Amino acid sequence: MIQSLNHPPALRGVFAPILTPLDPELNPDVPRMAEHARWLLDHGCHGLVVFGTTGEATSFASDERMATLEGLLAAGLPPEKLLVGTGACSVPETATLTRHAVAQGCAGVLMLPPFYYKDVPDQGLFHHFAQVIDRVADDRLRIYLYHIPQFSGVPFSLELIQRLVDAFPATVVGIKDSSGQWENLRAILERFPGFGTFSGTEAFLLRTLRAGGVGTISAMANVIPERLRHLYDHWQEPEADAWQAQLMETRQRIARYGTIPGLKLMVAEQRQDPCWRRVRPPLVALEGWAEEGGRQTTDRSGEP
Amino acid sequence: MIQSLNHPPALRGVFAPILTPLDPELNPDVPRMAEHARWLLDHGCHGLVVFGTTGEATSFASDERMATLEGLLAAGLPPEKLLVGTGACSVPETATLTRHAVAQGCAGVLMLPPFYYKDVPDQGLFHHFAQVIDRVADDRLRIYLYHIPQFSGVPFSLELIQRLVDAFPATVVGIKDSSGQWENLRAILERFPGFGTFSGTEAFLLRTLRAGGVGTISAMANVIPERLRHLYDHWQEPEADAWQAQLMETRQRIARYGTIPGLKLMVAEQRQDPCWRRVRPPLVALEGWAEEGGRQTTDRSGEP
Repeated sequence: MIQSLNHPPALRGVFAPILTPLDPELNPDVPRMAEHARWLLDHGCHGLVVFGTTGEATSFASDERMATLEGLLAAGLPPEKLLVGTGACSVPETATLTRHAVAQGCAGVLMLPPFYYKDVPDQGLFHHFAQVIDRVADDRLRIYLYHIPQFSGVPFSLELIQRLVDAFPATVVGIKDSSGQWENLRAILERFPGFGTFSGTEAFLLRTLRAGGVGTISAMANVIPERLRHLYDHWQEPEADAWQAQLMETRQRIARYGTIPGLKLMVAEQRQDPCWRRVRPPLVALEGWAEEGGRQTTDRSGEP
Repeated sequence: MIQSLNHPPALRGVFAPILTPLDPELNPDVPRMAEHARWLLDHGCHGLVVFGTTGEATSFASDERMATLEGLLAAGLPPEKLLVGTGACSVPETATLTRHAVAQGCAGVLMLPPFYYKDVPDQGLFHHFAQVIDRVADDRLRIYLYHIPQFSGVPFSLELIQRLVDAFPATVVGIKDSSGQWENLRAILERFPGFGTFSGTEAFLLRTLRAGGVGTISAMANVIPERLRHLYDHWQEPEADAWQAQLMETRQRIARYGTIPGLKLMVAEQRQDPCWRRVRPPLVALEGWAEEGGRQTTDRSGEP
């Protein structure tokens, strides 16, 4: 806990890993993205993750990612409310993206491990992060580790987290656990009480807060930010369990939107804006509009 | 077979996915790499893959990869004997690397699928490749698909291969199957008789050639190129089965070198050059020298 006094986690609350809308050429549509970002911040989100998994980060080249971030900031988005996804397979690309995010004044970065080689030793992963931190060489750097083994194929072991925190206590300040495994999240919360631990799913929001976590970075925050914020703000009230249960019902009801194309379709419907459905390959856009009771498969607009 | 008459596979034989030696700052050591490349071509390799899995491709940023390729060509390496690994997670990065390799006159590219998102539909993977081909927009482009699901997590189904070959018969001309699954390789060889199908392991070299394949792209070619070349040249002779069996024995004997750090250690020993042991994270260099009967763990040199 001494560590948490010296280096309090800068970020707490409900964060949306913002979807990345695309123009007809499938390039980031910065005006639409900035509009969505403002809507999210106005409707309960404490902050945003730009270019997380939900934002199709890896489907964009580094220069596109940096230009998009600059576009959002030029549109007036507050950098102190932004975490930026910067983890790539190589040290230099990760360092380039990270240095850029720090230079732009962003609150922190959400960093995937290098995700091509599998079954690599913790020592190799540690060296990767150490070299990135060394290259960025900026005291303002705040790293949130991104544990999402179902995509990365490269988990963060508790031992690796410990080693990183021990070596870089002022820099490695938190983690997003998107494994969907409560036992893993619980183990992190128990072992690292001063750490900025976010649940990667709203399903564990209440449990995470009760166990000392700092909030959630949830894809669903793109479409139901106020619901998540309400639970976050009132988690110590007697009705909290009922609210979490209601959240699980909502989650079930919109489960057919649970993929990234599904979330984009849902925003398209909320905004009555079919452009929102576009995705970059390898994802595939959902056609048509979803209706109460079932999704129409007819593509009304020819988009995307 | 009509297709194979119109578009004969340009490449056949034994290809080494060349290891990438590193300088003390862990940057590509182009002089050492060019020397190794020449040694491989002088000792039996028909060609090389630059920046495959064995070459730690994904541990380098795009600009490093392009500069290294240019360095090898400036050192006199023949581009017509080079396949270049160019598959990245995003369309633009893949297109940039691919356009560069084609512009340098290289024989073809070995292309990973986008490898972050898992369980994506074949349609999305098809769109990825179609968009890359569209962006490169060069008739000289020859793509070899890179099937290595144990790292990429994204397999090429037979249906996807068929769809790509049907749509781009002059461009998608071959595949490297590194799955290690003979049944998968056999199925590809049977279904695509005119295709440039390489076994990703020397273990299937003889079977691949007998079933109409064009050769092997084998990490082991970095250390035993002549052995592979001998079998390739004489596969139709009565002793071929015995030679393949001997190869399997050699493979077994040097199995402790079977990883990328292990192969680099073996080259370090062959060259008496400890610099060769260096790897980029997330891989971890093996220390010491291997001896007959066991590897010493003492690091004699402090390298890397």
